[in-house]
Amino acid sequence: MYLTQSLHRNVQQTPGLPATIFGNRVFTWAESGERVARIASGLKDLGIGKGDRVGILSLNSDRYHEVLLATWWLGGVVNPVNVRWSAAEIAYSLEDCDTSVLFVDDSFLALVEPITAAAPCVKTLVHCGDGEAPQGVLAYDSLLDHGSVEDAHAGGDDLAGIFYTGGTTGFPKGVMLSHTNMVVSALGSCATGDFVKPGGSLLHAAPMFHLADLAAWNGRNLLGGTHVIIPSFTPAGVIEAITKHGCTDALLVPTMIQMLVDSPDIKEADLSSFDQIVYGASPISEGLLERVTRVLPHVRLTQAYGMTELSPVATMLGPDEHTDPVLRTSCGRAAPHSELKIVDVDGVEVPRGQVGEITVTGAHVMLGYWNKPAETEAAVIDGWMRTGDGGRMDENGYVFIVDRIKDMIVSGGENVYSAEVENAVTTHPAVASCAVIGVPSAEYGESVHAVVVLQPGTALTLEELREHVKERIAGYKAPRSLEVVEALPLSGAGKVLKRELRKQHWDDTDRAVN
Amino acid sequence: MYLTQSLHRNVQQTPGLPATIFGNRVFTWAESGERVARIASGLKDLGIGKGDRVGILSLNSDRYHEVLLATWWLGGVVNPVNVRWSAAEIAYSLEDCDTSVLFVDDSFLALVEPITAAAPCVKTLVHCGDGEAPQGVLAYDSLLDHGSVEDAHAGGDDLAGIFYTGGTTGFPKGVMLSHTNMVVSALGSCATGDFVKPGGSLLHAAPMFHLADLAAWNGRNLLGGTHVIIPSFTPAGVIEAITKHGCTDALLVPTMIQMLVDSPDIKEADLSSFDQIVYGASPISEGLLERVTRVLPHVRLTQAYGMTELSPVATMLGPDEHTDPVLRTSCGRAAPHSELKIVDVDGVEVPRGQVGEITVTGAHVMLGYWNKPAETEAAVIDGWMRTGDGGRMDENGYVFIVDRIKDMIVSGGENVYSAEVENAVTTHPAVASCAVIGVPSAEYGESVHAVVVLQPGTALTLEELREHVKERIAGYKAPRSLEVVEALPLSGAGKVLKRELRKQHWDDTDRAVN
Repeated sequence: MYLTQSLHRNVQQTPGLPATIFGNRVFTWAESGERVARIASGLKDLGIGKGDRVGILSLNSDRYHEVLLATWWLGGVVNPVNVRWSAAEIAYSLEDCDTSVLFVDDSFLALVEPITAAAPCVKTLVHCGDGEAPQGVLAYDSLLDHGSVEDAHAGGDDLAGIFYTGGTTGFPKGVMLSHTNMVVSALGSCATGDFVKPGGSLLHAAPMFHLADLAAWNGRNLLGGTHVIIPSFTPAGVIEAITKHGCTDALLVPTMIQMLVDSPDIKEADLSSFDQIVYGASPISEGLLERVTRVLPHVRLTQAYGMTELSPVATMLGPDEHTDPVLRTSCGRAAPHSELKIVDVDGVEVPRGQVGEITVTGAHVMLGYWNKPAETEAAVIDGWMRTGDGGRMDENGYVFIVDRIKDMIVSGGENVYSAEVENAVTTHPAVASCAVIGVPSAEYGESVHAVVVLQPGTALTLEELREHVKERIAGYKAPRSLEVVEALPLSGAGKVLKRELRKQHWDDTDRAVN
Repeated sequence: MYLTQSLHRNVQQTPGLPATIFGNRVFTWAESGERVARIASGLKDLGIGKGDRVGILSLNSDRYHEVLLATWWLGGVVNPVNVRWSAAEIAYSLEDCDTSVLFVDDSFLALVEPITAAAPCVKTLVHCGDGEAPQGVLAYDSLLDHGSVEDAHAGGDDLAGIFYTGGTTGFPKGVMLSHTNMVVSALGSCATGDFVKPGGSLLHAAPMFHLADLAAWNGRNLLGGTHVIIPSFTPAGVIEAITKHGCTDALLVPTMIQMLVDSPDIKEADLSSFDQIVYGASPISEGLLERVTRVLPHVRLTQAYGMTELSPVATMLGPDEHTDPVLRTSCGRAAPHSELKIVDVDGVEVPRGQVGEITVTGAHVMLGYWNKPAETEAAVIDGWMRTGDGGRMDENGYVFIVDRIKDMIVSGGENVYSAEVENAVTTHPAVASCAVIGVPSAEYGESVHAVVVLQPGTALTLEELREHVKERIAGYKAPRSLEVVEALPLSGAGKVLKRELRKQHWDDTDRAVN
């Protein structure tokens, strides 16, 4: 399996169909295939060959599509940069895997100086934005002047990409994915019939650097059709793209779906072409599902759960399963390319209904973490990826995620899932946001501790909070201590950094996980 | 990727759903999973371990399903025997790859003595029929008494099966397929949405020893659902199984489809559950398509083209494409897991519309021929499988097969496709059947020669035949010589053995291909 195979097939089967639509720029598959072979030639002249890393620091564009494919055409390795990271984090990831060519668009030109100062591995910058290339940065079109090269046909277990993750859980780690990893996840997801459909038009509004959108992109390549690309998510941009180009499907996260259906513009728009949303990151809430059903009644919802290390899809919950009020709180069942079990700390499968760690195996499990053999060994045991997610499985294989394992609290011998407590705490009218962690307790081992940001002009006592929570969940789960703060520490991606909160209560040696 | 993965998933997700229905015998997925683990234990005690070969000489049954999975559970290699072969051919194939355990059902007990005499590699016979096991043959149920073993999790490039092919083209060759080969073909076929559908009930009437039916079987495993199995194809058996068990889909060859729609029983039967037929071996004729549309108006037809060496699917033609009178004479386009090109004798791609050899690459290309490195090297060049089929490709990637390459005739510098001439010859009312071959010609290099079986009580001259043919196709394609025979030499599978016909005209040294 190789990631350029679908490009060859689309050039052969639908040469005149638009491959990419970005603003007013349209390239057919025939043009896309020819451009990729020429950009590859340009990259080759910049020294890129088999196994060499090419970084991309850019909002979404048709050039993202071209750079990915041109890199693979040479047998190179892509390093799609998380655009929400700081210059220091980006420089770390580039330097960590020795990325020598970096594409950058206009939105991130200001970061170029600090990045290149801290990442001397970057030898060449290429502009992939729309304006003039600034000094010291190669113009994108200059790559097209180098003739063209043949596809090197890298594939199988060859390294295809290094995807840096980690924001909330420590230092960034480079997840190494092979061609087979990425193709298998997309093929298996498509096989359910609930991912992208053959010949449609896929909207890219979620960031293309993230494997969630790239998985959908890869599915669209495998089944043929068109990519409609907008730089980043805005409700108006999504509505305009669907209306103008008749998009059929998109990968979105629940927050984006919520902003879309709550947008005042949606009422007047004709979105009848749009019939499938694949979402990830979390289950969809009852309230949001009800709004989607009302505002976009013809749209089918599919949830995909996974992680970068799983290329990324492990489970799927199809449209029909969304009609069941219990099942739709799950993340579905193992996808056709995947196998999943829930295990205890020793890796032994637990009985159905019991909470343990979700582990996954299949040809979509990453090759490992770049230059981190110890972390790889801890994460992938006998071919099974330890996801770090706590969950339980019902009698029909549906998986319900309860918490990150490291966020689970063991208090008085009982498991307490911080996510469940947080859900109860945030329903209190005085609470704006909160995080629940375990803190040391002589009596209970760990005890439940709530860190809360209050709504302006409100107050909250521990007793009030405990009363409120105990009306909703078992008493032993109610916080035994309360800390009111101005703001919670957040990662670049907006996730709460619980390790920062824990630091104040634990020595490093007290708690192995962070 | 490993072939037992889908078994684990179905046991996890649909434990109470029937996995196999065979006559009155029904096993759920939970039971099927447990039985496979126990049969594997029995096979282990017979000495089967990783890489060891297990043969099956049997009509279709639920035990076929179990033996395949139990063998893979141990990391073993299946050798599904072509039930149409003679004892000598079967013994050759068993001995060639050192098959030590052979399952045999009641239909083939008479062959046991000649086979074991000629294939001393077979150490143990196991009965997989319904009656009592005869003397010297282990009872199937005795394998279930050995406890159970854990899945060895063989997979990836590990050898999964040796499938013997060759009837019409020389000595049988063992096609070696890996776990990845077989899973990729099924996943890619399913991804189109036009192969088996999630959760349906697949009817096995085509022989399970053949990779065509096994590919559909594997697709059903991957997407969940039920196998309804009948021993072999009869129209009445198919109609009864669909009526009784609500089958949704089946793999059939055109001859079976024809016998089914022409069966008098079909008029009274309720086949409303049945909505998808996947067929292979040849395009469907206009007449048959018209009858299918009339008799089974709700059935969607998909053609799959491929060969055992391609695990087996290379191209697919979906239901919608069957509405186009030109496209439906093609075998469709490269499937999502496959890449295809048409090449000249030097392996260089020919322009669209020009005839050349069909070559295919992808993760579904066989590992090679068992113990035949020279044949493997000739067949798979730089990862591209030379199919031996001549064809052309249109501007949209549709592939039209014209002939087997070795059956193509080069006469006076022009390519003549024997299949095209045969189609013209057989429309003559005096012709019952015919084969067209090239014979040596001083003037033309090769000249077109027709071997004809006449309808009883008729006569035919060369001049009459030439006139008839020239009204239909170009004059240079009309036969220059005519040979009337009592019968054509046929292979066990009913294909004309053209090499036998050619032998009378060519020395072995004259013509490299046979």
